[in-house]
Amino acid sequence: MTKVYNFSAGPATLPEEVLDIAQKELKDYQNSGISVMEMSHRSSSYIEIHQEAADLLKDLMKMPENYKVLFLGGGASTQFAMVPLNLMTDSKQADYVVTGSWSKKALDEAKRFGDATGNISSEADDFTTIPDLKSAKFRDNLDYIHITTNNTIYGTVIAPEDLPETKDTPLVADMSSNILSQAYPTEDFGLIYAGAQKNLGIAGVTIVILNPDILKEPLEFTPKMLNYKTHIEKDSMFNTPPTYPIYISKLVFQWIKEQGGAEAMEARNREKAALLYDYLDESKLFKPVVDKNYRSLMNVTFVTGDKDLDAKCAKEAEANGLLNIKGHRSVGGMRASIYNAMPIEGVKTLVNFLKDFETDNK
Amino acid sequence: MTKVYNFSAGPATLPEEVLDIAQKELKDYQNSGISVMEMSHRSSSYIEIHQEAADLLKDLMKMPENYKVLFLGGGASTQFAMVPLNLMTDSKQADYVVTGSWSKKALDEAKRFGDATGNISSEADDFTTIPDLKSAKFRDNLDYIHITTNNTIYGTVIAPEDLPETKDTPLVADMSSNILSQAYPTEDFGLIYAGAQKNLGIAGVTIVILNPDILKEPLEFTPKMLNYKTHIEKDSMFNTPPTYPIYISKLVFQWIKEQGGAEAMEARNREKAALLYDYLDESKLFKPVVDKNYRSLMNVTFVTGDKDLDAKCAKEAEANGLLNIKGHRSVGGMRASIYNAMPIEGVKTLVNFLKDFETDNK
Repeated sequence: MTKVYNFSAGPATLPEEVLDIAQKELKDYQNSGISVMEMSHRSSSYIEIHQEAADLLKDLMKMPENYKVLFLGGGASTQFAMVPLNLMTDSKQADYVVTGSWSKKALDEAKRFGDATGNISSEADDFTTIPDLKSAKFRDNLDYIHITTNNTIYGTVIAPEDLPETKDTPLVADMSSNILSQAYPTEDFGLIYAGAQKNLGIAGVTIVILNPDILKEPLEFTPKMLNYKTHIEKDSMFNTPPTYPIYISKLVFQWIKEQGGAEAMEARNREKAALLYDYLDESKLFKPVVDKNYRSLMNVTFVTGDKDLDAKCAKEAEANGLLNIKGHRSVGGMRASIYNAMPIEGVKTLVNFLKDFETDNK
Repeated sequence: MTKVYNFSAGPATLPEEVLDIAQKELKDYQNSGISVMEMSHRSSSYIEIHQEAADLLKDLMKMPENYKVLFLGGGASTQFAMVPLNLMTDSKQADYVVTGSWSKKALDEAKRFGDATGNISSEADDFTTIPDLKSAKFRDNLDYIHITTNNTIYGTVIAPEDLPETKDTPLVADMSSNILSQAYPTEDFGLIYAGAQKNLGIAGVTIVILNPDILKEPLEFTPKMLNYKTHIEKDSMFNTPPTYPIYISKLVFQWIKEQGGAEAMEARNREKAALLYDYLDESKLFKPVVDKNYRSLMNVTFVTGDKDLDAKCAKEAEANGLLNIKGHRSVGGMRASIYNAMPIEGVKTLVNFLKDFETDNK
């Protein structure tokens, strides 16, 4: 069959090397006679995997010594509640930078637990831009400031150089769709969370990186499982963690390390994104959705301006083994998600397909 | 190498047939060119898996038509909060039958949200018995009654014939360690929950089966992700569900169906448990921990009465490929977990080992 490239926004393509190891070890992990799926989470073999996953991530993200890595269930959507439950406890005020649907959802959940506002927003630009966070007027006396570093649906990014200067106020980031795709200064964040299924592995584990010094007493009605301290105290082993998803994340971390870390990923991702954006900027048929200054390296959104032609393009791409380039239902058009694991050959193949499509549909 | 049998209490042994399929399909699901791990949860291929998993479980558990199946993250420990948040909303009273560490944890979490009591308890017997639930005096005007059908740590079971008659009060069960190991009358329960990693698959997905008619408005501070209605409305697709763990559960459900369903599982489990208990009852060295009337078919606990000899036994078993028979740290001794997926050959091999150990240690 044709070689397939999967541009899904998440769950998404995994590195082929990771799938090879997972398949090889599936029934017998390193001569143990059992699968990782069958391992007691209290066994030494599993604890080694768990610890190695945390250590690799600490290394890859250059975390300060006191930062903690947690492997939790419930998806990033559960973090939308955990963040305010654990952090909006003092002034009970937080500012959310609203750059798309996900930050809006995070804000909506936070509003239920305190005074959260989303006045700094790019909604007026249909989320195709990013507010200037260097000059943005955040309120005083905030418990935290929340950002979403990459907007999966619209295809924008808050680049490391555009992060707000929050001084003593903890900066909290949903980094689900671009964690480890480029080098962010981890020490500038109080807390980072990310569902694993885009850049870090598979659905079923959510990774939280935090500075434990920012934690106070959570709101009193916080369920025990939604209290960060519960998991910090037990190294994410308070209950049975999602062991197999954590194992896949460990393999992904190893792969990123072998590729040269976040910096090498960034170089590769810039090359991949440039290939696609350069073509789209020149194309007479396609038009990128997002202004040059705010373009995501991970999710490239584009349109023809004609809905039927968009649909035809996505359908023909699918038939050519270029899967899932149909845009999110709330935006339409096309979206190619080119996370860390998408090889450059995949992007080249897509560009060639789009060129042919353009020729055929002049 | 020697054939290995894994008696872990969970995560636990999976059916060999399931692992075979998972390994074969790992890199290429049914000629799609991609792994299930990489599938968008909105793709038709994944939705088919998701729906089939729910349909198989409905069938296997003979659920009433209106019952719903949810696939959630966060483990059964998150259900300890979700149950009171969603159900302890009217009289704000619930009775918990306390038959071990897990029901105590469930009770402790519920107490934070309302008037939950645990007066019906076997703690005075060190959890080696089960209170008589037919004659137990539950309070009037309860929002629900909570039981733990199988106690993984102590090795007791509340058998189907010993369930309480709760009339109009919803019966809620943590069935994590014996769901589908024998046939319970699903229609007698308002809600059943189970972490998948013992009898239904791998860690990372928790299965909830419920009668939606028992739901009222949850407590006001209930996080959106902990509201059952959020997940019922979206068929467990409100956010990205743990797709690969759900796929493994689907394979396990198919396997159980091929074996003949819960009834066939029960017959097989009775045969396996009898082999082990019969030997233990006759043994001059080993003694089962639990009284005959309350013995779990899933977790068989036993001791020699001598801690050093217990440790020697577990260690020698391990060296002979009989993994994880060391008892839980809170009980000591030995525990053999013989869930649905443990083949009868595994139990025979264990009994033979124990006989040899007895001969050698007279």
